[in-house]
Parts: sequence; structure tokens; C-alpha cells
Amino acid sequence: MSANNFGQHFQVTSFGESHGLALGAIIEGCPAGVRYDESILAELLYRRRPGLSAATSSRQETDNPEILSGVFEGQTLGTPICVLIRNQDARSRDYDEIKSEPRVGHADDVWVDKFGHSDHRGGGRSSGRETLSRVIGGAFAKMFLNSVCPDLDVHTHAKQVGSIVHDKDDFDPHGEWGLEAEFSSALREFLTQAKVEGQSYGGIAEVHIRNAPKNLGQPVFHKLKSDLAAAMMSIGAVTGFDMGEGFDSVHLKGTEFHSAHDSKVYGGIRGGISTGEPISLRVAFKPTSSILDIAKKGRHDPCVMLRALPVLEAMTFLVLADHVLWSRLDRV
Amino acid sequence: MSANNFGQHFQVTSFGESHGLALGAIIEGCPAGVRYDESILAELLYRRRPGLSAATSSRQETDNPEILSGVFEGQTLGTPICVLIRNQDARSRDYDEIKSEPRVGHADDVWVDKFGHSDHRGGGRSSGRETLSRVIGGAFAKMFLNSVCPDLDVHTHAKQVGSIVHDKDDFDPHGEWGLEAEFSSALREFLTQAKVEGQSYGGIAEVHIRNAPKNLGQPVFHKLKSDLAAAMMSIGAVTGFDMGEGFDSVHLKGTEFHSAHDSKVYGGIRGGISTGEPISLRVAFKPTSSILDIAKKGRHDPCVMLRALPVLEAMTFLVLADHVLWSRLDRV
Amino acid sequence: MSANNFGQHFQVTSFGESHGLALGAIIEGCPAGVRYDESILAELLYRRRPGLSAATSSRQETDNPEILSGVFEGQTLGTPICVLIRNQDARSRDYDEIKSEPRVGHADDVWVDKFGHSDHRGGGRSSGRETLSRVIGGAFAKMFLNSVCPDLDVHTHAKQVGSIVHDKDDFDPHGEWGLEAEFSSALREFLTQAKVEGQSYGGIAEVHIRNAPKNLGQPVFHKLKSDLAAAMMSIGAVTGFDMGEGFDSVHLKGTEFHSAHDSKVYGGIRGGISTGEPISLRVAFKPTSSILDIAKKGRHDPCVMLRALPVLEAMTFLVLADHVLWSRLDRV
Amino acid sequence: MSANNFGQHFQVTSFGESHGLALGAIIEGCPAGVRYDESILAELLYRRRPGLSAATSSRQETDNPEILSGVFEGQTLGTPICVLIRNQDARSRDYDEIKSEPRVGHADDVWVDKFGHSDHRGGGRSSGRETLSRVIGGAFAKMFLNSVCPDLDVHTHAKQVGSIVHDKDDFDPHGEWGLEAEFSSALREFLTQAKVEGQSYGGIAEVHIRNAPKNLGQPVFHKLKSDLAAAMMSIGAVTGFDMGEGFDSVHLKGTEFHSAHDSKVYGGIRGGISTGEPISLRVAFKPTSSILDIAKKGRHDPCVMLRALPVLEAMTFLVLADHVLWSRLDRV
Repeated sequence: MSANNFGQHFQVTSFGESHGLALGAIIEGCPAGVRYDESILAELLYRRRPGLSAATSSRQETDNPEILSGVFEGQTLGTPICVLIRNQDARSRDYDEIKSEPRVGHADDVWVDKFGHSDHRGGGRSSGRETLSRVIGGAFAKMFLNSVCPDLDVHTHAKQVGSIVHDKDDFDPHGEWGLEAEFSSALREFLTQAKVEGQSYGGIAEVHIRNAPKNLGQPVFHKLKSDLAAAMMSIGAVTGFDMGEGFDSVHLKGTEFHSAHDSKVYGGIRGGISTGEPISLRVAFKPTSSILDIAKKGRHDPCVMLRALPVLEAMTFLVLADHVLWSRLDRV
Repeated sequence: MSANNFGQHFQVTSFGESHGLALGAIIEGCPAGVRYDESILAELLYRRRPGLSAATSSRQETDNPEILSGVFEGQTLGTPICVLIRNQDARSRDYDEIKSEPRVGHADDVWVDKFGHSDHRGGGRSSGRETLSRVIGGAFAKMFLNSVCPDLDVHTHAKQVGSIVHDKDDFDPHGEWGLEAEFSSALREFLTQAKVEGQSYGGIAEVHIRNAPKNLGQPVFHKLKSDLAAAMMSIGAVTGFDMGEGFDSVHLKGTEFHSAHDSKVYGGIRGGISTGEPISLRVAFKPTSSILDIAKKGRHDPCVMLRALPVLEAMTFLVLADHVLWSRLDRV
Repeated sequence: MSANNFGQHFQVTSFGESHGLALGAIIEGCPAGVRYDESILAELLYRRRPGLSAATSSRQETDNPEILSGVFEGQTLGTPICVLIRNQDARSRDYDEIKSEPRVGHADDVWVDKFGHSDHRGGGRSSGRETLSRVIGGAFAKMFLNSVCPDLDVHTHAKQVGSIVHDKDDFDPHGEWGLEAEFSSALREFLTQAKVEGQSYGGIAEVHIRNAPKNLGQPVFHKLKSDLAAAMMSIGAVTGFDMGEGFDSVHLKGTEFHSAHDSKVYGGIRGGISTGEPISLRVAFKPTSSILDIAKKGRHDPCVMLRALPVLEAMTFLVLADHVLWSRLDRV
Repeated sequence: MSANNFGQHFQVTSFGESHGLALGAIIEGCPAGVRYDESILAELLYRRRPGLSAATSSRQETDNPEILSGVFEGQTLGTPICVLIRNQDARSRDYDEIKSEPRVGHADDVWVDKFGHSDHRGGGRSSGRETLSRVIGGAFAKMFLNSVCPDLDVHTHAKQVGSIVHDKDDFDPHGEWGLEAEFSSALREFLTQAKVEGQSYGGIAEVHIRNAPKNLGQPVFHKLKSDLAAAMMSIGAVTGFDMGEGFDSVHLKGTEFHSAHDSKVYGGIRGGISTGEPISLRVAFKPTSSILDIAKKGRHDPCVMLRALPVLEAMTFLVLADHVLWSRLDRV
């Protein structure tokens, strides 16, 4: 019920201001006996970090997670898992001038209007830095899923950034931004130019889920598609979500759509429930707003979507873990 | 937390199988002292019903709601409001042949796989008839909103059905499907032809919200956009959701997007919170699956989206009512 | 999360005013495949009804439950189960004089103060009649438990009514009020006299749970003892709850208490979790308030606790069913 | 919904193992604009600590809370408040021998049975040390309540420890254990002797709430008495709860009970809702189990209830804060 808590059974609570002492997450409902795998958390954090390359923001964050509770002798205890990341290099001084002058495209003024006051430094909790908490939660969700559906595969990649469209069906899960080398280098060039021009771009990301267990999703209000939509739309820069043909299904006649027998058309979810077939989602991002941000002059990120790819994965893992647990209650 | 319950403070619970004895809704968290306005409920039910016109399904449903609790002397009591609609004209016999042969595009087989057995008659709870419960809930949400933000205006209309696109900005809230006469008659002709051909179409609907209170939405997981997405995506035939420019914002450069100062671009929600500006949403529907449905031979609905327009409104009212209550807890 | 909803996984929602059109319950989270057993519901409703004997209230209620949804071909569907009981013989006219003059010991004035207005007829939802909804929910919880822990035995009996104390350890699960014939006839005589005198009495009831599964209870805030306490204390006339020696454990030294190795001492729950040993609870009731109730002149119930015994059982079944489900999530 | 989360609107999440790196709490739903008052937190932590005096445990804990988020420039932000307390002086080595031999009266074996493994050091989360999290949550609840009902007064005191009964109505809120000097010194003597003898005692504590707002409590399942009972019974050593005359009301006839017009009789809560009159509760504690604890040889606490008094206060503040917020939603 609370605003900073996601999930019904496998739950993550996100806390921390962008420029406060620390951010972190509490994971609740993670069953006992899950093997703690540091590399899963490290990999997601690594991909989420800014300054990934010359093309993206040069601001360096060093995010070292500390596991404070809930893990003992290499396994989860079934108790709340608290993971903390101290903020460093906060540069609050950069944000002093913002206090009186809200940043265009940011939500600082909206927060002040709602809550009466706000931590104006770096956007407080409306900062993209809040997604650290999601990545932590998603990492534990993945550790859990590894033990119950080891073949599950979640892959995200950039489908489009500005006018650069990846129009092939082949992606490289190990490539930068999930792309084959040819495309990622073209994209890198595009972003470098954007940085020079002080420009930013939105984009469309795709999430492909393979080997998800069937029977995930709880009609009628926690259909799998509904929870996935809520998960993705809760990310700051996300403006749209669809599955399968989604918005494009308006171009198909009923006889075409329903005879396709192809999960790419309807997205791998029927009646709100996973069928075991591949699930395909699309997520739309608006252009990064920090181009207009005084505090980030010269350090802006030309396409925030690229850093958000591991966040999409994390949210996917959280939704799947939640529904794997929930499905244990389906039958007598 | 439960699968058939929507909302955190203003909540609706949906119950009932399509061909069982009754469907209905429990509304909880509706404050005491809301004036009961029968016409609001009647109007939404009227628009949701099948057989609206020659163009749509000719199957006739007579849905007479009975208020069993929670309303006394014309006002809500602050106690659970139970509203019941008895099923009539159920035609279960039509569905006997389906028991052994799942209908293409329906979820009957998925439900059986998940729950071990299922009420196969008319889709049980995966039937569109379940949306009756949502309309009941939405009607009470609207009654509540009427008393706290009387200027609120929620308007839905068809933006596109198959290849028929409404490319103007003008709509008629009193017109059929929210459209001006010229467009609605063109659409009616298109649908009549589809019925003759045994064809069905998906579509894109728009929801325009005007004069919503500002400060609605609770970061970070119950942002207004996140809850609206969950609400819409929980409807059976919905395959996509976006707000403002949404998926089209990929075509805008950051400098264009953020200098627009136009809520049509970003959708009237910033930082996940309503700003008081108009909110614009789009919802994508897949083509009706009942074309292939033996039991509905000759009675199929060529575009289920058109009947779902009042359901979109109902879900919007539910989300807004929930957040109006929630915002009462924002400040000391 | 809502005020009229009990349970985290196996949930009951209670609705209906005492003298409105109907009362009832929605059961959510009951797994699919539970065999519907009408006799369980009938037996609990029978024992809960007023007018059980000359000794108690002579007001006759005929409570015929109607299953509206969630049960199909003799089994639960995994969908919300709605059960309705129409009110009959409402005698609203008796309550007209109460409207301006609140009844002593009742909560009518408190409700008006809180909600602005109230259904004054028969106490609305503060009436004991609301417990019908709990009995319905408890009956389905028992049906579920029958399939997963068939040896479970929950027995309630009167331990004390006014000065009448049952000081033996033997009880008769089939006797009136769970008592052996000797005691029940003595109690009946005491109550008949109370009725003549216009007097009422409180009491202490005991709940004995045998063969409950172990590992039920979720530290730290949903310990089994905590949820049982909340369940019992939510009943109108209940003023106290303890388990094992409870309030009497103050008379035992630590060395005595902890060397007892007897679940009667600590109650069968350790660390908030059931151990598989017998669980023993006590519940205190205040004297019936309706002695001072104009509308019930000559029809008052001299000890409301006796009718509440099946309600205690129902609440116990609800808590156990909830925790049986919850424990499915304990381990990977 | 989660097991380590308490409250519906004003919520605390408790985390941390007794001998892990840290314990702490997340407070969610605390409105923005509450003035942070360090002294409230310090005072509750001070009273909860062991080693309060020669009479109690000599083990020294230094509990320095660190506010990691949610407070900015001396006020709450309306975002999650994370407070951390690092564990020091953990003495894990004392607990190595326990690993194979469960401690009598403790829940170590029960946890292992439920979760498969457990942090055996110092009881993990079944340790009394977990109540630190509750005290943190309660302190913020009190800060919130100070701003909306500044006259509220919550006072706890020892009513009975073993055979030592405080039979007067006068207590000293500033005295040790809430007692006047005469009684507290008698009690101290009793406890010193118990320590010498290696004995422990249970007790009965009283909670007196004055000037609580009226209209707190949400029928029918979140009545104020129900939530208070759940709160108290969730504390490890608590075995019973009653309000007003509670278990003793069995000794009163209905005519006596209901004509008393004295909140001491019925406890200040009617129909589950606070009336504005004083609220009186009693909480029963079993004797401390650590007398039989190898690891605490010579350091045992002869009456754990005395240290738990501030925990009772904290839980009371949490329940009241939750219901103050909830009551904002009562009326249109």
C-alpha cells in the first residue's frame, strides 16, 4: 500500500534521496534459502552506472552495496534484506543555485507544491539515482528466480534512439545496450554528436522474456501485463508501454491477429496470464531533461534510456518473482 | 493485495462469473457523505452495454444494479458499498460445446491450466462482462469526485478503429463514441461492413482529463502514470498505454520536447504527479477475438474497444478518487 | 488494507448493515479446487443464530446464504466467492425512536460523530449481526483447511459466564456451548434467571486448537498470536485476549514457566510460530449492552458471548487458513 | 501485507538480525513537514536499553541511530525515513555453542524448522533487540502526533512484577518504570534478589492514553482495540492484552458495567472507536527466558517487561499515528 513499495509477495521498498547520506532497498518476501550471488547485483549496478562511456554522462558514481541484513552464511534468511549504498561525490554545491530556480523538465517544483518542501539537491527522489534501489531489488529477484526457473532469460535492448532505428530481429545479449557491434558503434557516434550539440533523445526499448514459467498473472487486476505496465511506467522517464504488437495491432484485422499463433503478435500473455511462450514488451522513453540543467552543464546524458536498460530488467525480475510466489497459492 | 481488488484507499473489488448467478462490486474507502447519484451509474452502464446499435453485438443484456449496502437516505455511510447485477439470458447451452474445445483468442485454456478447472461458460471472469464491476466502482468514484472537484472532466473517444483514423482535435463528448456525427456515421458504416464480413478490428482510444486536481500521484511506485497504466492494462483487450506524446516522443529532440511547455507533449503529469494541466492518455486495443467464437456466431462485436470507452472512464475515475484521498496524507 | 477486509492471503471482506437489504462476505484468495461443503456453513450459521433457546434472545432470524460466485460444479474456482444473506423481519420501526436518542452501551453516537451520519437501525454495522460475514468467511476457511490439514480440530467453549465458572478440564465438543450436559443445564438456568431480572453478563471463552500445522506465523508483525489477537479483538463485545497462561503467567517464576514443557503454559506458539502442539486461547467478553436497549425490550440476550462461540471459531479458521497459505512462501 | 511491516498508512518496516551488521527501520507514510526532534528518539532508546541499572542486564549496548533519508533541513520530506543502528559488541563467539543446542524458551529451533536455516547468533530476529526498530518507528510517530494532537499523553508503567503488585492508582511518569520512588526502589530490590537467584519474572504493564483524538479506529477489522492488541501481541514476550476492565469485566453485571459511565470500565474505546476519553490497556508478559541461556550466564535480565515499557509506548504511538491519518479519509 505504500508509495515506495513494489510487489505483493516479493516486495522491494526504495529509500534515499539522490544527494542524501545513502540510498538503498529493503527486500521482503524473498524466501529463505536463496543463494546470494554477488555477481548478479554487481553486473546490474555496473550497467546502470553513468559514465559508461565517452558517449554518456562523464559523472562518475561508485556504488558499493553493503548487505546489512537478511543474508547469512551465503543464503537468504527469509527476513528483510537491507542493502545500502552510500552517496559519494555529491556535489551539493552545484545544486544551490537550483533551489530558487526550478529546472525545466524536472519535477522539483511539483514536489515542492505537493509536499511543502523538498530536497532540491539533484532532484531528491525524483532523480534517476533512485533506480539504484530497483536494481538492488531486481538482483535479489533474479537470484530467487535462478533457483526456481533457471532457464529464464530476460534480455533488453535499444530498439530506437531518436532517428536511429534497429530494424533487425537479431540482438546481442552481450553487446553494449544489447546490440550487435555494428549498431552499437553507430549509436555511440550518434550520441557523441548529441553531446557536442547539447542535444538529447528519447527512445524505445524492448524487453524479451524467454522461458518464463506459465501460469503467472492474477486476474483481474494483477494480470501479468498490468503489473509489468505499472512497473515500467513507474520509472521516471518512461512515457509508454505495450506488449506484442501493442499499438501496432490496430493495423491488423481480427482474422490476421488471431490466426497468427505467434506470441510476437499478442505478446506471450493471454487472459493476463503467461502461457510459457516468449513475452515481448516495448517501453517508450522521453528525451533526457538534463540538457537544460544548469548543474549538469557539459555532463548531460544524451539518452537516459540506455542507462535504464538494466532497470527495465530489474523491474521485470521483480514482477516475475512476485508472480512465481503468488502462483503457489493458486490451487488447493 | 488481492487480485480482484483495485486501489489503495478508494478500492473496488470485482466479483462474479459471466454466466454465474450475479456479478457485482464492493466499493470500500468511499468516504461517508457522498450523495448517491443514480444517473451516473445508469449512464455508464448504458454506454457499456452490448447491442448499442446495429453495428455492434445484437445480444441484449439488461443490467439492473441493486445497491445492497453502504448507502442510506441518499448518502454513502462510509461502510462497504455492495452493488449486485443478476445475470439474465445466460444462454449457457451455447457454451456447452466450448467445454471440450477452447475458443481461439480466448483465455479458457489458460485458466484451466492455472486453476485446474474453470467456469467455461462465456469465459467466466475473463469475459468482458467482468467490466460491469469496474463501471460500478467508477460510478461511485465519480460521485465522490463530484463533491470534491466538481469541474473535473473525463472524456474518452475513439481515435482509430482499424484504418479509420480520427485526425482532428475536435471531439464531441455527447456524440456516439465521443465523436462528431460525421465521424461516428463513417465508423458505423465501417463496422456494419465488418459484421457482414465476419471481421473485427482493434483500435486506439484517447482519454482526456481536464481540471484534475494537482498533486495527485505518489512517487515512486504509485506515480499517477503508473497507476493509470495498471488500470488500463488490466482490461482484457488492452495491449498498450502511453501518455502525452508517448511512443511518438522518440521523434522529438530534447530541446523540442522540453521547450514545448505544452501538456499535450508530456501528458499533464510531471515527476509522476498531476500538475493541474490537461492529462492525455492513449490506450491500444487488439481486435475482438469473438469472431472465431462458435457461441457468438452472427452476434460478434466488430470492435470491442467502442464498448470499453466507459470502462476507461470508470478506471480513470477510480485512479483519481484513490489519489485524491491519498493526497490528504501528504502533509502534516 | 481496508477496514472491512481481514487476512493477507486468505481474505474475507465483510459488508452489509444490520437492517439494510442484505449482509454478506466476499472471500478472496481461497485456492481453486476446494470442495464446497454446505454443511460446514450451515452448522456455523445455525450455532450463531439468536433464539437458540428459551434462555437467549427470542428474536428469530432466518439466515439463508446464497452463493453468487466463485463456486462451480461443487468446487471453488480461485475467483472471489460472494455469499449473500438477505435481511428479513427487520423491524426498522422499532428503531425509529432510537434515531434521536442513542442507546446506552451501543456505538450509535460514536459512529455519527465519526462519519457524520449513520444507519441507526439496529446498530448498522456495529450490530452483532455483522458477524454473519465472519462466519461465512470462516466456513470457507474451514473447507480449505479440511483439504490440507484434515486432522485440525478447533473447539470453543464457555469457561465462565458471570459467576458460573467451568473449573474442569473436560469439555464436550458436541454439547451446548461446548459444555457437558451438567454444566450447560446449570448455565441455562442461570441465563433464564438473568432474562427474568433483565440482567446481562460477560464471560470468558476458551479456544482449543489441536493438530494445527506447525510453522504457521510470520515474524515479526504477523506472529500467529498477533493475528489471532487482532481477529478476536475485532469482535464487538470482546475486551481481552491471552494465550497459554497469559495474564496468569505473572504468578509463575521463570524456572517454573520455562521448565513446564507444556503447551498449556505458553500456549502452543513459540517465537510467534505454531509448534504443532495444542494452542490454547482465552477471550474475554463484556456483558451484553442490549439490556438497556429500548428496541430490544423483553428480547435481550443475557450473554452475547454464547452466540459468539462460532464466531471465535470462524476467526480462528480464517487466521489459520491465511497462515497455511503464507507458509507456502517461506522457502525457496 | 508484509510480515515485517506494521501499519496501514503510517508504516514502519523492521529489519536486521540481532548480531548482524545493523538493525533499523524504514518509516513510510510519515507526512511531510513534521519537525524532526532528536530528543524523542534518544529518550525512547535510552529507556529501552539493557543495563539500565544493577538490577537489570549488565550487557551494554550503545545504540546510535543514523538518519539516512527522509529528513532534510530539520523536517520530514514525505519520503521514506531510513534509520540505522550498527551492532557493536556482538559477542558472536558466545553463541557458537548454541548452534547445535537450541536454547530453552527461545525460538531458535522453531525458526530453523520453518525457514530451513537461521541466524543462530543471539536469536537473530527473534531477539528482543529487534524492538529497536519499533522504538525508532514509534519515535517518528510521536513527532508526527506532537504536531497534530500536542496534548496527547501516553504513559506506561509496571503494574505487577512477579508477586510485587502496585495497587495504587497514582503513578509517576518521570519515575523509573513509571513508578513512584517508593515502589521503584522496592521493585529494584526484588529484581536484585532475582538476579542473585538466577530467577526471572513475568509481569503486567499498563498503558494509559490521555487526550487521544476521538474518532480513531476503523470498523470492523481495524477497530482501535484490534490494532492495539495486534501491536502489543507482536512483541516477543507478550502473552495477553485487555482494555478497560478486560478479563475482570466478567465480575460485573451488565447493569453495573453499562451504568458506570467511566472509561476505566470499558477502556475509552466504544464500537472500536476512540471517544476522546482516557484509554487504558493492560499487557501481560511471560518471565524472561534467558535465565536458561548459556550465552547470557550471569547477564540475564530478571524481568524483560521493564525494558519493554518504551516499546509499548512506541507501538501505541504507531497505532495512533496510523489512525490519525486514516481518519482523514472518513468523510467527503
